[in-house]
Amino acid sequence: MRVAVDAMGGDFGPSVTVAAALSALARHPTLDIVLVGNEGRLRETLDGHANYDPTRLTVESAEQVVEMHERPSSALRHKRESSMRKSIDLVKSGQAQAAISAGNTGALMAMASFVLKTFPEIERPAICAALPGLGAPTYVLDLGANVDSSSSQLFHFAVMGAVLAETVGQRPRPRVALLNIGEEEIKGNDRVKQTDLLLRQSALNYVGFVEGNDIFTSSVDVIVCDGFVGNVALKASEGVARMLSQLARDAFTRNWRTKLAAMGAQGPLRELRHRADPGRYNGASLLGLRGIVVKSHGSADSRSFAHAISVALREIEEAIPERISRQIEDLLAHNPKP
Amino acid sequence: MRVAVDAMGGDFGPSVTVAAALSALARHPTLDIVLVGNEGRLRETLDGHANYDPTRLTVESAEQVVEMHERPSSALRHKRESSMRKSIDLVKSGQAQAAISAGNTGALMAMASFVLKTFPEIERPAICAALPGLGAPTYVLDLGANVDSSSSQLFHFAVMGAVLAETVGQRPRPRVALLNIGEEEIKGNDRVKQTDLLLRQSALNYVGFVEGNDIFTSSVDVIVCDGFVGNVALKASEGVARMLSQLARDAFTRNWRTKLAAMGAQGPLRELRHRADPGRYNGASLLGLRGIVVKSHGSADSRSFAHAISVALREIEEAIPERISRQIEDLLAHNPKP
Repeated sequence: MRVAVDAMGGDFGPSVTVAAALSALARHPTLDIVLVGNEGRLRETLDGHANYDPTRLTVESAEQVVEMHERPSSALRHKRESSMRKSIDLVKSGQAQAAISAGNTGALMAMASFVLKTFPEIERPAICAALPGLGAPTYVLDLGANVDSSSSQLFHFAVMGAVLAETVGQRPRPRVALLNIGEEEIKGNDRVKQTDLLLRQSALNYVGFVEGNDIFTSSVDVIVCDGFVGNVALKASEGVARMLSQLARDAFTRNWRTKLAAMGAQGPLRELRHRADPGRYNGASLLGLRGIVVKSHGSADSRSFAHAISVALREIEEAIPERISRQIEDLLAHNPKP
Repeated sequence: MRVAVDAMGGDFGPSVTVAAALSALARHPTLDIVLVGNEGRLRETLDGHANYDPTRLTVESAEQVVEMHERPSSALRHKRESSMRKSIDLVKSGQAQAAISAGNTGALMAMASFVLKTFPEIERPAICAALPGLGAPTYVLDLGANVDSSSSQLFHFAVMGAVLAETVGQRPRPRVALLNIGEEEIKGNDRVKQTDLLLRQSALNYVGFVEGNDIFTSSVDVIVCDGFVGNVALKASEGVARMLSQLARDAFTRNWRTKLAAMGAQGPLRELRHRADPGRYNGASLLGLRGIVVKSHGSADSRSFAHAISVALREIEEAIPERISRQIEDLLAHNPKP
């Protein structure tokens, strides 16, 4: 297996991506990695790490970098020599089986769509991530690749999420649900109602509507929503988690008594930090494309970024793009066309 | 001041609403409350409480109850004798200045809209709540009264939220923001972009786009969004908070060591529970109507329900409905019609 890592992406660039690549290589003996980025900076960072196998870790030079707040259309036009674009090009040319980037999501989406293209049955790609819950994580999509999705697009998202949950997530017959603002049939907008009909008629294990709180209860395996809604839900959730962790920090550092209490509670606090750490689930998949692209959170540390690499490896093993294409063809053949 | 309390609504009915009414009366010497509901049950619950002033706390009999999962249209048609409907009727007839209910949100919205009506300039009412943040709470609307809102409706929501933040929230020139999935102008759907234009042209203190996480950073005073998005964001946030509190409980009750640590950390844990308690912010306002209606969370305890009552009192003091109507008239007179 060979993957391309956009080594310049994310808030920390090579200091995170190189360390993550090295730890992924150590963990996966059959893996090769191409680090794409500024050769000088990458060599320099690599020099700080002893003992890596230069036949398994190569550097592909790329002189441009996509900025975190650059417009996707501008990046697409003007950043053809960027580490992001060249990572995707390596997937297109077959020199890598997946690309992983912590860079600008919109630019990554635009470049991946432009270079790799979607399968003919699939109108739009979607971003899917496994979000942590009380039990098993839930695959939620779309998390922001699209702002206005038709019911047939939402139907495709459901199929793509189900493939990911079944294979990478190891859930046989994954339960697929549609995000709505009420469990009753009467609620929701027209698009949600139409998608509900399509899903009811399909061979998917569709369980109906869920609400926002169900993202975190592990009660279903896949939750489908419009990218606008999914992105807001994701960011709102991150916001609450960050607020609560800040409040906890405040409460435990107020004075010497509370600091003492925090020392006494180190064990459970560490466990809590670990279980609530979104980095453990880092790595969102761009689904629907003729190639594997995984997006890491921009603020990921090297351990989280390594997790994003391992998500890409699981997708390679399961041949996710081909499976998605086949599954959608099958469902469309046996079902009324959405 | 006189308010009507739907005493049968919510998960706990009179056991919560009666206690909350009594505590609100104790706190507000100029307040009268009408408890609306099953007279027998209310008298029985009241008998458990000594020392209340029967001239300030009266009972209005209502034989029907709106069920928590009843369809709004059905409740509207068949529950004219319900505690919810009769509470709103009291506002309509001027016998009460506000109604407070912990019952079925959709039914409350439908009944309040039908009975009280919106002001002529306002197309649709919206649900607005102050959500907790690291600093001051942020007023977010719409939280689910509507599933598809036009840009002119979203503009009205902005005005209504700003009035609430300025008066009840005591924020001079409240900063109003539009919820989007990116801070850049290019992102977002057409409706969001159109609303952005309307807000830029208005006299509101409009600060542009924010993302989901900004709901909890106290960086703006008012966040405007579509009811579908707002409801999902709200419920997703509640879901994360519930998950994290469950994880914390698990971590601190794992064994005798962690239980001991929890005892040692009682102080900070109590502070955290208090600061993160959404009940402290209970009470969502139905805005845009010709009368004051406040929705309590269905699972509110008596302290939280009493907070919802106090939200209604603040709105009476500030004459929120009239202020909203005037403010929208003013803005429409001085601005291009949205």
